[in-house]
Amino acid sequence: MKTVLVRFLPDDVTIEAEIGKLLLDVALEAGVFIPAGCGGSGTCGQCKVRVVNGSVDAQKLEKVHAAARAAGYVLACQSRITEEVTIDVPKAKLGRKVIPRDEADRMRQTATPMESPIVPEIRPMTLRVFMEPPSPSIDDNLSDYERLTRILKVDHDLHPVKCSLDVLREMPQQLRKDQWKITACFKIDDCGEGSAAARTYSLSRIVPGHLKTGPMAVAIDIGTTSLWGELIDLDSGKVLARSSRYNPQISMGDDVISRIVFGLKKDGLEKLQQHVSRGLNEIVAELVEKSGTSIDEIDYMVAAGNTVMTHLFLGLFPKYLREAPYVPAAQNIDTVPAQELGLMLSRHAFVNVIPGVASYVGGDIVSGVLANGMWDSELMTLFIDIGTNGEIVAGNKDLLMTASCSAGPAFEGGGLEYGMRAAPGAIEGVLIDPETYEPMIKTIDAKPAVGICGSGIINIISQMLKIGILNQNGKYADNLDTPRIRVGRSGREYVVCRAAESGLEEDIILTEVDLDNILRAKGAMFSGYTCLLDKIGLTVDALDRVIIAGAFGSFINLDHAITIGLLPDIPREKFSFIGNSSLKGARLAALDRNLFAKSREIARAMTNVELSEDPSYMDNFMAALFLPHTRGELFPSVRFYKT
Amino acid sequence: MKTVLVRFLPDDVTIEAEIGKLLLDVALEAGVFIPAGCGGSGTCGQCKVRVVNGSVDAQKLEKVHAAARAAGYVLACQSRITEEVTIDVPKAKLGRKVIPRDEADRMRQTATPMESPIVPEIRPMTLRVFMEPPSPSIDDNLSDYERLTRILKVDHDLHPVKCSLDVLREMPQQLRKDQWKITACFKIDDCGEGSAAARTYSLSRIVPGHLKTGPMAVAIDIGTTSLWGELIDLDSGKVLARSSRYNPQISMGDDVISRIVFGLKKDGLEKLQQHVSRGLNEIVAELVEKSGTSIDEIDYMVAAGNTVMTHLFLGLFPKYLREAPYVPAAQNIDTVPAQELGLMLSRHAFVNVIPGVASYVGGDIVSGVLANGMWDSELMTLFIDIGTNGEIVAGNKDLLMTASCSAGPAFEGGGLEYGMRAAPGAIEGVLIDPETYEPMIKTIDAKPAVGICGSGIINIISQMLKIGILNQNGKYADNLDTPRIRVGRSGREYVVCRAAESGLEEDIILTEVDLDNILRAKGAMFSGYTCLLDKIGLTVDALDRVIIAGAFGSFINLDHAITIGLLPDIPREKFSFIGNSSLKGARLAALDRNLFAKSREIARAMTNVELSEDPSYMDNFMAALFLPHTRGELFPSVRFYKT
Repeated sequence: MKTVLVRFLPDDVTIEAEIGKLLLDVALEAGVFIPAGCGGSGTCGQCKVRVVNGSVDAQKLEKVHAAARAAGYVLACQSRITEEVTIDVPKAKLGRKVIPRDEADRMRQTATPMESPIVPEIRPMTLRVFMEPPSPSIDDNLSDYERLTRILKVDHDLHPVKCSLDVLREMPQQLRKDQWKITACFKIDDCGEGSAAARTYSLSRIVPGHLKTGPMAVAIDIGTTSLWGELIDLDSGKVLARSSRYNPQISMGDDVISRIVFGLKKDGLEKLQQHVSRGLNEIVAELVEKSGTSIDEIDYMVAAGNTVMTHLFLGLFPKYLREAPYVPAAQNIDTVPAQELGLMLSRHAFVNVIPGVASYVGGDIVSGVLANGMWDSELMTLFIDIGTNGEIVAGNKDLLMTASCSAGPAFEGGGLEYGMRAAPGAIEGVLIDPETYEPMIKTIDAKPAVGICGSGIINIISQMLKIGILNQNGKYADNLDTPRIRVGRSGREYVVCRAAESGLEEDIILTEVDLDNILRAKGAMFSGYTCLLDKIGLTVDALDRVIIAGAFGSFINLDHAITIGLLPDIPREKFSFIGNSSLKGARLAALDRNLFAKSREIARAMTNVELSEDPSYMDNFMAALFLPHTRGELFPSVRFYKT
Repeated sequence: MKTVLVRFLPDDVTIEAEIGKLLLDVALEAGVFIPAGCGGSGTCGQCKVRVVNGSVDAQKLEKVHAAARAAGYVLACQSRITEEVTIDVPKAKLGRKVIPRDEADRMRQTATPMESPIVPEIRPMTLRVFMEPPSPSIDDNLSDYERLTRILKVDHDLHPVKCSLDVLREMPQQLRKDQWKITACFKIDDCGEGSAAARTYSLSRIVPGHLKTGPMAVAIDIGTTSLWGELIDLDSGKVLARSSRYNPQISMGDDVISRIVFGLKKDGLEKLQQHVSRGLNEIVAELVEKSGTSIDEIDYMVAAGNTVMTHLFLGLFPKYLREAPYVPAAQNIDTVPAQELGLMLSRHAFVNVIPGVASYVGGDIVSGVLANGMWDSELMTLFIDIGTNGEIVAGNKDLLMTASCSAGPAFEGGGLEYGMRAAPGAIEGVLIDPETYEPMIKTIDAKPAVGICGSGIINIISQMLKIGILNQNGKYADNLDTPRIRVGRSGREYVVCRAAESGLEEDIILTEVDLDNILRAKGAMFSGYTCLLDKIGLTVDALDRVIIAGAFGSFINLDHAITIGLLPDIPREKFSFIGNSSLKGARLAALDRNLFAKSREIARAMTNVELSEDPSYMDNFMAALFLPHTRGELFPSVRFYKT
């Protein structure tokens, strides 16, 4: 990626920026405040800046008067970096204090993106064999099926072979359509254990002639909120297409608990099952369309999801997932015919589900561990998925401990007045002027702001804390002279985006009740990994690395997350971000059946700790209800501008 | 069985007879002619005889005048033997010639009934385990399914366990209905091969509490004409009930070829499949009702049938069964869920089908071989099933050769003007007066005669041959003065039963065209076993035994069958009759899964000879179109009264 230097005046902050990046985003990363009420949609015209040296690729110049245009003014939210450039920010001249340089540098730090270190062999769960069995004669008139099994054993060393009635029923015609030239397609039945000794080959279909297209598989992450899918070419190992959408179960509850409750109503489980399958069918249809392939050549789906999602996808009775002692119906599920789940795949297609560990540590986490490679590494690793449950895995190849810490949905925007998922119009980047307390906001896809997503909340809280808007106990300062802080229905609140500039017709605010929710969520996470590490006899300082998973992690600013006490205060280079590791693990398992077998081993190897039963967890939690923590020495690098 | 002596006057023939047997039957066996036009229904009153000494249990005496009654007259067809008795046959006094004593003795010889020599262990294809897994706690909150598999492995040495989604879906509730006391029901998945190494246990259902009823299995013989079923208690090994009925496919064709033709029509195969399943459902319903058991406890069905019947039952495409080189779709079928076949059994029930050898040597024959034990015996055995195809197996534990010889349906009554199956009203026993040529007939169930079944035909032809009504070329003698022989539409014919005495309103006749059909059928059978033995380098004299299978065999009179050249002329004590050996084999396989595995070995071990491709077969066939054979020396014991 080519980068150039971008210098902001009058603060004289210079930052390296990728060519093509929006000027507003560059300023945000640099800690340079540019007013931007509309979230970057180019409608408010507040973010006018002047190009002093060099040039940018500027759009929507109609918002800039002709004279200003001639003087070099552009909209920061509509201009992309093309070369080294110097920018003057006019409104910044109004006596505002520049954020210290080292702070600004750190504020744009995000975790290093990582790819999975696990390199799969291409060892699909299915097999295709082109065959030309000798046609029968009066001296060799074995039945069609016995003829095939004979040749498969003698010439291809494939045995034992099994065959369903469906396939047998078509066999005589299929064998003869192209004069005894066929492609025999098999499901390899060691998928669960990876052992050749117990391997059987299930003949899943017979295609006349030499089938040269495909085979393909679909890797799926079934999230509570979103479904993610990838179409994988099982010859090349390449991802042919990607697709995602909301989990249609959302209409039956936002979180896993409300889904379980719905699932216990009459026909509720059937409806939930049908809804998620519908969503997956849409994803598959899109994958096939995008890649210009045929649905017939999809041999199987590998799905990862949390335990509740897996239960609802399979139609398993979810009641006991939420009642102590939190017992799932099943984890290691045998292969399921795709059509039994209402999936619009071929008759021969099947589904394998990555097993989970416990009711609240599911196959998504196991899949994530498979993908992040900690099971195969000496490095002492903390793996965190900051979602509703806040799943944590600590350990390495010798030991894997896991827990979920019921962090709640605050970091997904749940339970907050204007919280929302990381969707278009969500405020994700925020910079607050330390003098005026005015915020500069950046929304996802630069759509008018309609709410605040998790990373936006972390960023806001961290900055409010640093510049003194917020006290360490999570309450707003009461001595500040700014209209941005006011008293609302539920106590003091900060106006993040005014109604006029928002995509709603109301102010987008962050209340003290919201803050309390965040405090509890981050306290739960902190207490969770502290307790879990304690079980292994470690502290955060002993960690070689922290791997953050989830869509959430892609926006998270490390320094902000550490400032609020969510992530441990250890060297930033130890953090990496793996993205949707659940999907990545599903992809690995789809490509390599031995890795699917490995996911079962991993699930078995992971020891689940029920934190709710651990007295030290509650102590740790209480101590963490402070920003960053009641014990400041745990967060030595956190500094505030005003204290 | 207690027997007493019955002496017939004036012929002075004494015969040992079972108590309870009808006097008419005893006379028939003794070769004592008593006129009996109505077939034994007690309506014609012709069979009046006088009890000279001792007494009988006489019914329907209203047909006998009071005076005659007082003099000891009774109807032979309505009187049962109770003690030693002497009978005078008045009409016999009319100068008729007595059949020589040794002939009469031999004429009542039938093959010795045999039971299967194979003693099964009770080793069902399913397994029930009562379990009390520890209920979960917070320290032991494995999923329900993993909890079960753990206990099954540790405490019961059952692994690996598989489980369908259906069962998983019910598992949480079923486990908790009776406080973690359950009966876990498994399908044992080595059934095909019998090897413990490859054995898996499929959890087929979970029943709360301790299930103490059942388990049961159904053994089925799917005949082209009839379906036979037995309900088997898998604990005791006992047969709880039996049932049979016509194969409902009969409405779609009488024989296998017409069924195949029907199966190739649009929706024909589906209809045939549904019809046979309907018949089987009726049988199962009757079995359950008769035994007072529950259909839920039937774990599986083992079915044997000829290859066409098996194909139609499974819905396999039958086209290539009847086109050279006669290739079946499949023989060794994996277990099929019963519901996939439209059977009204429980969801967990499954079907195993005994494999066949070739298109015209099916699972019924393999099942018969399993039951007759020739695969386990040193004795050189000829196993004959005289049905439409006339299947033959020759050999012993070292070698099994088989063939079908397209005998056609004549011995099942097919293709004859008044031929019929062995059903009520079928003439099965016949004795012809050697002077008057008047026949004495005995029908099945003593119903008015409506046709002639296979054994009746053999008996008639043999006697007509012996007393000179019929020439050895299968034509009627043209010099006899009897109204019983006349010229009809298709040449000469013999009136077996006059219209007035029959259950039809027409004469029941046997034409020369009928005779020709019989000649061809017996010629095909004779040529078939002669050729097959020749392949092994044997003649009939080298045989240690001949085992006759089929419903047909139960009525057959050995001497008559040898006289017409159908069975080989070897010592009568070498013959035995095993009845429905297909059903018996299915019962063995149902009781002992190792014997099911054995049936697969037997099928593989049997070498099929396609007689239609063997030139010596046609030569042998042509030579056999004579009664008993053109080479009289092959039938040294056959003697005629008049030649």
